[in-house]
Amino acid sequence: MRKIEHIGIAVQDLEKSNELFEKLLGKRHFKTEEVEGEKVATSFFQVGETKVELLQATDESSPIAKFLERKSEGVHHIAFDVEDINVEVERLKAEGFEILNETPKLGADNKLVVFLHPRSTNGVLIELCQDVS
Amino acid sequence: MRKIEHIGIAVQDLEKSNELFEKLLGKRHFKTEEVEGEKVATSFFQVGETKVELLQATDESSPIAKFLERKSEGVHHIAFDVEDINVEVERLKAEGFEILNETPKLGADNKLVVFLHPRSTNGVLIELCQDVS
Repeated sequence: MRKIEHIGIAVQDLEKSNELFEKLLGKRHFKTEEVEGEKVATSFFQVGETKVELLQATDESSPIAKFLERKSEGVHHIAFDVEDINVEVERLKAEGFEILNETPKLGADNKLVVFLHPRSTNGVLIELCQDVS
Repeated sequence: MRKIEHIGIAVQDLEKSNELFEKLLGKRHFKTEEVEGEKVATSFFQVGETKVELLQATDESSPIAKFLERKSEGVHHIAFDVEDINVEVERLKAEGFEILNETPKLGADNKLVVFLHPRSTNGVLIELCQDVS
Protein backbone atom coordinates (compact mmCIF):
# COMPACT_ATOMS: atom_id res chain seq x y z
CA MET A 1 0.00 0.00 0.00
CA ARG A 2 2.16 2.80 -1.31
CA LYS A 3 -0.36 5.62 -1.60
CA ILE A 4 -4.05 6.32 -2.03
CA GLU A 5 -4.32 6.07 -5.78
CA HIS A 6 -7.85 7.44 -6.02
CA ILE A 7 -11.16 7.96 -4.28
CA GLY A 8 -14.16 6.75 -6.31
CA ILE A 9 -17.37 8.79 -5.98
CA ALA A 10 -20.70 7.57 -7.38
CA VAL A 11 -22.67 10.29 -9.17
CA GLN A 12 -25.97 10.44 -11.05
CA ASP A 13 -24.88 12.82 -13.79
CA LEU A 14 -21.20 12.94 -14.76
CA GLU A 15 -21.46 16.22 -16.64
CA LYS A 16 -23.09 18.08 -13.76
CA SER A 17 -20.70 16.54 -11.24
CA ASN A 18 -17.70 17.48 -13.37
CA GLU A 19 -18.84 21.10 -13.09
CA LEU A 20 -19.39 20.76 -9.35
CA PHE A 21 -15.96 19.21 -8.68
CA GLU A 22 -14.31 21.73 -10.97
CA LYS A 23 -15.68 24.47 -8.67
CA LEU A 24 -14.81 22.53 -5.52
CA LEU A 25 -11.25 21.65 -6.48
CA GLY A 26 -10.51 24.78 -8.48
CA LYS A 27 -9.32 22.76 -11.47
CA ARG A 28 -10.68 20.78 -14.41
CA HIS A 29 -10.84 17.02 -14.75
CA PHE A 30 -7.92 15.81 -16.83
CA LYS A 31 -9.60 12.91 -18.57
CA THR A 32 -12.75 10.88 -19.03
CA GLU A 33 -12.94 7.19 -19.78
CA GLU A 34 -15.59 4.51 -20.19
CA VAL A 35 -14.96 1.13 -18.58
CA GLU A 36 -17.00 -1.35 -20.58
CA GLY A 37 -16.57 -4.24 -18.13
CA GLU A 38 -17.98 -2.21 -15.23
CA LYS A 39 -20.55 -0.28 -17.29
CA VAL A 40 -19.33 3.07 -16.00
CA ALA A 41 -18.30 6.41 -17.42
CA THR A 42 -15.55 8.01 -15.33
CA SER A 43 -13.72 11.30 -15.04
CA PHE A 44 -10.54 12.06 -13.12
CA PHE A 45 -9.24 15.04 -11.17
CA GLN A 46 -5.71 15.17 -9.75
CA VAL A 47 -5.19 16.41 -6.18
CA GLY A 48 -1.59 15.96 -5.02
CA GLU A 49 -0.60 12.33 -5.57
CA THR A 50 -4.23 11.12 -5.46
CA LYS A 51 -7.03 11.22 -8.02
CA VAL A 52 -10.72 11.86 -7.49
CA GLU A 53 -12.63 9.52 -9.82
CA LEU A 54 -16.28 10.31 -10.53
CA LEU A 55 -18.34 7.30 -11.65
CA GLN A 56 -21.64 7.32 -13.50
CA ALA A 57 -23.46 4.14 -14.51
CA THR A 58 -23.90 3.62 -18.26
CA ASP A 59 -26.35 0.75 -17.78
CA GLU A 60 -28.75 -0.31 -15.03
CA SER A 61 -26.72 -3.50 -14.51
CA SER A 62 -23.69 -1.41 -13.47
CA PRO A 63 -22.42 -1.76 -9.87
CA ILE A 64 -22.76 2.03 -9.67
CA ALA A 65 -26.46 1.90 -10.60
CA LYS A 66 -26.99 -0.69 -7.86
CA PHE A 67 -25.04 1.40 -5.35
CA LEU A 68 -27.15 4.48 -6.14
CA GLU A 69 -30.35 2.44 -5.74
CA ARG A 70 -29.32 1.10 -2.33
CA LYS A 71 -27.62 4.23 -1.03
CA SER A 72 -27.19 7.61 -2.69
CA GLU A 73 -24.48 9.69 -4.30
CA GLY A 74 -21.26 9.65 -2.29
CA VAL A 75 -17.97 7.85 -1.76
CA HIS A 76 -18.08 4.46 -3.48
CA HIS A 77 -14.56 3.10 -2.93
CA ILE A 78 -11.02 3.89 -1.84
CA ALA A 79 -8.22 2.62 -4.08
CA PHE A 80 -4.71 1.87 -2.87
CA ASP A 81 -1.74 1.71 -5.19
CA VAL A 82 0.23 -1.52 -4.77
CA GLU A 83 3.49 -2.68 -6.31
CA ASP A 84 2.49 -6.31 -6.90
CA ILE A 85 -1.25 -6.96 -6.78
CA ASN A 86 -0.96 -10.76 -6.61
CA VAL A 87 1.38 -10.59 -3.62
CA GLU A 88 -1.04 -8.20 -1.86
CA VAL A 89 -4.03 -10.45 -2.60
CA GLU A 90 -2.23 -13.43 -1.07
CA ARG A 91 -1.18 -11.40 1.97
CA LEU A 92 -4.71 -10.05 2.55
CA LYS A 93 -6.36 -13.45 2.05
CA ALA A 94 -4.03 -14.87 4.69
CA GLU A 95 -5.07 -12.00 7.01
CA GLY A 96 -8.73 -13.03 6.58
CA PHE A 97 -9.99 -10.31 4.21
CA GLU A 98 -12.71 -11.27 1.75
CA ILE A 99 -11.46 -10.84 -1.82
CA LEU A 100 -14.20 -10.15 -4.38
CA ASN A 101 -12.14 -11.09 -7.45
CA GLU A 102 -8.99 -13.05 -6.80
CA THR A 103 -7.93 -12.73 -10.42
CA PRO A 104 -7.14 -9.07 -11.09
CA LYS A 105 -9.30 -7.46 -13.78
CA LEU A 106 -8.67 -4.47 -16.03
CA GLY A 107 -10.10 -1.28 -14.53
CA ALA A 108 -10.04 2.38 -15.56
CA ASP A 109 -6.79 4.25 -16.12
CA ASN A 110 -4.90 1.15 -17.34
CA LYS A 111 -4.77 -0.59 -13.96
CA LEU A 112 -5.18 -4.16 -12.78
CA VAL A 113 -7.71 -4.04 -9.96
CA VAL A 114 -8.99 -6.26 -7.16
CA PHE A 115 -11.81 -5.38 -4.74
CA LEU A 116 -12.20 -6.38 -1.09
CA HIS A 117 -15.70 -6.86 0.27
CA PRO A 118 -16.72 -3.96 2.55
CA ARG A 119 -18.06 -6.37 5.16
CA SER A 120 -14.46 -7.36 5.92
CA THR A 121 -13.17 -3.75 5.91
CA ASN A 122 -15.38 -1.64 8.22
CA GLY A 123 -17.91 -0.87 5.50
CA VAL A 124 -15.34 0.59 3.10
CA LEU A 125 -15.14 -0.91 -0.39
CA ILE A 126 -11.38 -1.20 -0.93
CA GLU A 127 -9.74 -1.44 -4.35
CA LEU A 128 -6.15 -2.51 -4.88
CA CYS A 129 -4.62 -1.31 -8.11
CA GLN A 130 -1.40 -1.87 -9.94
CA ASP A 131 -0.25 -0.03 -13.04
CA VAL A 132 -0.16 -2.19 -16.15
CA SER A 133 3.36 -1.82 -17.48
CA MET B 1 -6.73 22.13 -2.48
CA ARG B 2 -3.14 20.95 -2.35
CA LYS B 3 -3.61 17.30 -1.45
CA ILE B 4 -5.99 14.90 0.24
CA GLU B 5 -4.96 15.37 3.83
CA HIS B 6 -6.96 12.45 5.20
CA ILE B 7 -9.93 10.14 4.75
CA GLY B 8 -12.13 9.90 7.85
CA ILE B 9 -13.76 6.50 8.51
CA ALA B 10 -16.48 6.04 11.14
CA VAL B 11 -16.00 2.88 13.24
CA GLN B 12 -17.83 1.30 16.17
CA ASP B 13 -14.76 0.08 18.06
CA LEU B 14 -11.48 1.91 17.60
CA GLU B 15 -9.35 -0.84 19.10
CA LYS B 16 -10.76 -3.56 16.82
CA SER B 17 -10.56 -1.28 13.78
CA ASN B 18 -6.97 -0.36 14.57
CA GLU B 19 -6.14 -4.07 14.35
CA LEU B 20 -8.11 -4.44 11.12
CA PHE B 21 -6.46 -1.46 9.42
CA GLU B 22 -3.05 -2.58 10.67
CA LYS B 23 -3.60 -5.84 8.76
CA LEU B 24 -5.04 -4.07 5.73
CA LEU B 25 -2.33 -1.42 5.41
CA GLY B 26 0.55 -3.54 6.66
CA LYS B 27 1.57 -0.90 9.20
CA ARG B 28 0.58 0.40 12.64
CA HIS B 29 -1.30 3.61 13.40
CA PHE B 30 1.16 6.32 14.37
CA LYS B 31 -0.99 8.16 16.89
CA THR B 32 -4.30 8.36 18.68
CA GLU B 33 -6.04 11.52 19.82
CA GLU B 34 -9.31 12.53 21.45
CA VAL B 35 -11.10 15.59 20.07
CA GLU B 36 -13.20 16.90 22.94
CA GLY B 37 -15.23 19.34 20.81
CA GLU B 38 -16.38 16.60 18.42
CA LYS B 39 -16.65 13.86 21.07
CA VAL B 40 -14.50 11.46 19.09
CA ALA B 41 -11.48 9.25 19.67
CA THR B 42 -9.30 9.04 16.58
CA SER B 43 -6.32 7.11 15.30
CA PHE B 44 -4.15 7.84 12.29
CA PHE B 45 -2.35 5.75 9.70
CA GLN B 46 -0.03 7.27 7.09
CA VAL B 47 -0.31 6.09 3.45
CA GLY B 48 1.86 8.16 1.11
CA GLU B 49 1.00 11.83 1.62
CA THR B 50 -2.49 11.04 2.98
CA LYS B 51 -3.68 9.81 6.36
CA VAL B 52 -6.45 7.35 7.15
CA GLU B 53 -8.27 8.64 10.26
CA LEU B 54 -10.47 6.21 12.17
CA LEU B 55 -13.20 7.89 14.25
CA GLN B 56 -15.09 6.39 17.16
CA ALA B 57 -17.75 8.33 19.11
CA THR B 58 -16.97 8.93 22.78
CA ASP B 59 -20.52 10.11 23.53
CA GLU B 60 -23.93 9.54 21.97
CA SER B 61 -24.15 13.26 21.07
CA SER B 62 -21.10 12.87 18.80
CA PRO B 63 -21.59 13.44 15.05
CA ILE B 64 -20.03 9.99 14.58
CA ALA B 65 -22.65 8.34 16.82
CA LYS B 66 -25.37 10.02 14.73
CA PHE B 67 -23.72 8.95 11.49
CA LEU B 68 -23.54 5.31 12.66
CA GLU B 69 -27.22 5.42 13.68
CA ARG B 70 -28.33 6.73 10.28
CA LYS B 71 -25.90 4.76 8.12
CA SER B 72 -23.26 2.25 9.16
CA GLU B 73 -19.50 2.00 9.45
CA GLY B 74 -17.72 3.44 6.43
CA VAL B 75 -16.24 6.58 4.92
CA HIS B 76 -17.41 9.61 6.90
CA HIS B 77 -15.52 12.49 5.25
CA ILE B 78 -12.74 13.47 2.85
CA ALA B 79 -10.37 16.20 4.03
CA PHE B 80 -8.43 18.48 1.71
CA ASP B 81 -5.33 20.35 2.79
CA VAL B 82 -5.57 24.07 2.00
CA GLU B 83 -3.03 26.85 2.35
CA ASP B 84 -5.42 29.53 3.65
CA ILE B 85 -8.71 28.20 4.96
CA ASN B 86 -10.45 31.59 5.08
CA VAL B 87 -9.62 32.31 1.46
CA GLU B 88 -10.97 28.87 0.45
CA VAL B 89 -14.17 29.37 2.46
CA GLU B 90 -14.81 32.69 0.70
CA ARG B 91 -14.08 31.14 -2.71
CA LEU B 92 -16.38 28.15 -2.09
CA LYS B 93 -19.21 30.30 -0.68
CA ALA B 94 -19.05 32.43 -3.82
CA GLU B 95 -19.28 29.19 -5.88
CA GLY B 96 -22.50 28.28 -4.05
CA PHE B 97 -21.28 25.58 -1.65
CA GLU B 98 -22.99 25.28 1.71
CA ILE B 99 -20.48 25.90 4.50
CA LEU B 100 -21.36 24.20 7.80
CA ASN B 101 -19.09 26.35 9.99
CA GLU B 102 -17.83 29.57 8.44
CA THR B 103 -15.51 30.17 11.38
CA PRO B 104 -12.82 27.50 11.32
CA LYS B 105 -12.72 25.31 14.42
CA LEU B 106 -9.90 23.30 15.97
CA GLY B 107 -9.97 19.67 14.78
CA ALA B 108 -7.72 16.68 15.35
CA ASP B 109 -4.03 16.76 14.48
CA ASN B 110 -3.64 20.49 15.23
CA LYS B 111 -5.66 21.70 12.25
CA LEU B 112 -8.20 24.43 11.66
CA VAL B 113 -11.16 22.78 9.97
CA VAL B 114 -14.30 23.76 8.08
CA PHE B 115 -16.95 21.35 6.77
CA LEU B 116 -19.09 21.62 3.64
CA HIS B 117 -22.59 20.13 3.73
CA PRO B 118 -22.75 16.92 1.68
CA ARG B 119 -25.98 18.04 0.00
CA SER B 120 -23.91 20.61 -1.92
CA THR B 121 -21.10 18.16 -2.75
CA ASN B 122 -22.62 15.01 -4.30
CA GLY B 123 -23.22 13.37 -0.93
CA VAL B 124 -19.59 13.63 0.21
CA LEU B 125 -18.92 15.39 3.52
CA ILE B 126 -15.91 17.58 2.66
CA GLU B 127 -13.50 18.95 5.24
CA LEU B 128 -11.02 21.72 4.54
CA CYS B 129 -8.05 21.80 6.85
CA GLN B 130 -5.13 24.08 7.43
CA ASP B 131 -2.16 23.40 9.69
CA VAL B 132 -2.04 25.62 12.75
CA SER B 133 1.39 27.18 12.65
